[in-house]
Amino acid sequence: MDPLTHLINTLSEQALSLLYIDNPLTINYLTGFLSNPHERVLALLITEQHTALIVPKMEENEAKENKVIDTVLGYKDEESPWEKIQNHLSGLQLNHASIGIESDYLIMDRYNQLKQLFPDATFESITSRIQNLKVTKTEGELEQMREAGRFADIALKVGFNALKTGIAEEEVVALIEYEMKKLGIKEMSFDTMVLFGDHAASPHGTPGKRTLQPNELVLFDLGVVYNGYTSDVSRTVAYGEVSSKIKDLYEVVLQAQKTAQAAVKPEMTTGSIDSIARDIISQAGYGDYFIHRLGHGLGQSVHEYPDIAPGTRLSIKKGMCFSIEPGIYIEGLAGIRIEDCVVVTDSGSEPFTETTKELIVVPVK
Amino acid sequence: MDPLTHLINTLSEQALSLLYIDNPLTINYLTGFLSNPHERVLALLITEQHTALIVPKMEENEAKENKVIDTVLGYKDEESPWEKIQNHLSGLQLNHASIGIESDYLIMDRYNQLKQLFPDATFESITSRIQNLKVTKTEGELEQMREAGRFADIALKVGFNALKTGIAEEEVVALIEYEMKKLGIKEMSFDTMVLFGDHAASPHGTPGKRTLQPNELVLFDLGVVYNGYTSDVSRTVAYGEVSSKIKDLYEVVLQAQKTAQAAVKPEMTTGSIDSIARDIISQAGYGDYFIHRLGHGLGQSVHEYPDIAPGTRLSIKKGMCFSIEPGIYIEGLAGIRIEDCVVVTDSGSEPFTETTKELIVVPVK
Repeated sequence: MDPLTHLINTLSEQALSLLYIDNPLTINYLTGFLSNPHERVLALLITEQHTALIVPKMEENEAKENKVIDTVLGYKDEESPWEKIQNHLSGLQLNHASIGIESDYLIMDRYNQLKQLFPDATFESITSRIQNLKVTKTEGELEQMREAGRFADIALKVGFNALKTGIAEEEVVALIEYEMKKLGIKEMSFDTMVLFGDHAASPHGTPGKRTLQPNELVLFDLGVVYNGYTSDVSRTVAYGEVSSKIKDLYEVVLQAQKTAQAAVKPEMTTGSIDSIARDIISQAGYGDYFIHRLGHGLGQSVHEYPDIAPGTRLSIKKGMCFSIEPGIYIEGLAGIRIEDCVVVTDSGSEPFTETTKELIVVPVK
Repeated sequence: MDPLTHLINTLSEQALSLLYIDNPLTINYLTGFLSNPHERVLALLITEQHTALIVPKMEENEAKENKVIDTVLGYKDEESPWEKIQNHLSGLQLNHASIGIESDYLIMDRYNQLKQLFPDATFESITSRIQNLKVTKTEGELEQMREAGRFADIALKVGFNALKTGIAEEEVVALIEYEMKKLGIKEMSFDTMVLFGDHAASPHGTPGKRTLQPNELVLFDLGVVYNGYTSDVSRTVAYGEVSSKIKDLYEVVLQAQKTAQAAVKPEMTTGSIDSIARDIISQAGYGDYFIHRLGHGLGQSVHEYPDIAPGTRLSIKKGMCFSIEPGIYIEGLAGIRIEDCVVVTDSGSEPFTETTKELIVVPVK
């Protein structure tokens, strides 16, 4: 059953008369219509009988080609989308209705507009309902994610090949993104990260003018958007020879990553996956240097439900997709992170990326 | 007076005891601290006496280097930022307080968290207060915007030079962004747009595999982020000879753009600037083909307050920055848009970009 039908079928369970959805990713997920309206309103109105899309005038024609949406209502910049919504719904008895909203996306100003239209309605969050639909991917979605992963592997290779003494972090980023765009990738999943040596000690550092020197580490964290689905991968490689201390740190992160990934299977909890990796790092004495969750869900968005974090208790299921990315960050020394994203299968998991996780040594050029 | 001090000084006017701000751009604007927390909570708490930043653990050290923020409270992924907020504020009598929020940014889930912490508090929007601070730019901000504009001019030149028969739209995009990244630009202000011929008839079209043929138009719309400030420029150029019909259309758009831009001066209303351009296009018979507002504010974000749209009545002031971008879009034929962004001066306006607006003819290669 397609997600929209599934969602409509469950409206009555929560006694909801109307769903108001303005997260473009959810609109894309439910209807296939993809548009980034920036600050303009793009809203999908769903009742048991009907779906309508309120859309900026300049997207109206494209939206009308969509076969899933019953009614497309374009509005000009000088018109109010709220009036369009009010007029469209005026035939329905929504005064004392329950209206479903995505509380993890809807901003206050728009909520207040809805409250003005329906002062006596109650508003209920359908966030977890949508999350529960999105969290297990269909085979069609997985195909896009595998392709996104394949491009991430290519991007890593471009990055490894670009390394040479004196090159700046931002130059490597430019090269990677250029090669991706030439291959038809319109968008990276997030700002490509290439960090050299001790600069990688901040897990959210920004690539800049720092130049590469022989015998230091290079941390890559990158991904692409392919047909609306994301990839995300991290590798840390050695440029020349690195110290045995750093090799030991790498080995700890590698064992944590591989052990956690190998353990993934249906019915485990998200928190227990995190523990497997965290315990290995803690037992090696570096627990205080692993300062973020083990992973995050991904799909249409590169960070989505669920978190793979200490204490979380979601029981994982076939079709769920998330990252496994332990790291050790020691200021003044190095940052090491190794990450694959995986999909849960019947009996384990499959990664979306295939680049080796053993320490790659790129010869000094 | 710096914006934070100015904002704090006005707290008492609205009888606000606390401001909760989680728009990263506003946090950057008020404190200089710049971070994109993605789905994590990054929140600035402002009282008359104190500013505190709630920040993901991995950004804590960087935040502590900031001199404007009194207290930095890092939280780990397994900790609740809301508990940190509650503990930090526990010494204050906020039970029946008025709390200021940015209603154009705050999402429902976070609002509900705040309501749980302060069940008897009232929440008031400070959106217009923040907008009114941000809308007139300081000389320091204008310097960044001029530099962002200079890079946009360079990007256009890269694009014009890349045109040759058979090249795909997405290849031109890749080249432009590559050259920008090599020059140290980390981020474009929005997805670079390069559209050929009739493909430009959708004002929000997406560059793809369409290849360039001799004697058609090419529409560029692009901008960069420089030190946290954006640029935005559109030019439409001819690749080879275009028909006299198309040249006439171009002339209409050009006159609309130039006339509106020349008219800008303090005390005009936003709506009257829109009218000047719109009337010229309507009188030429193409009013129905100019299907968007004339312009939008820009600064930290490429789309921000105010709108330059029909019927809007904001009186413009020195230091305000916005786009002037009329267009004509005729399906199956062409899309033509010409855009400069300007800052309002004492007696007129100054553009951020200098690329000529007369029709450029790029020789066929």
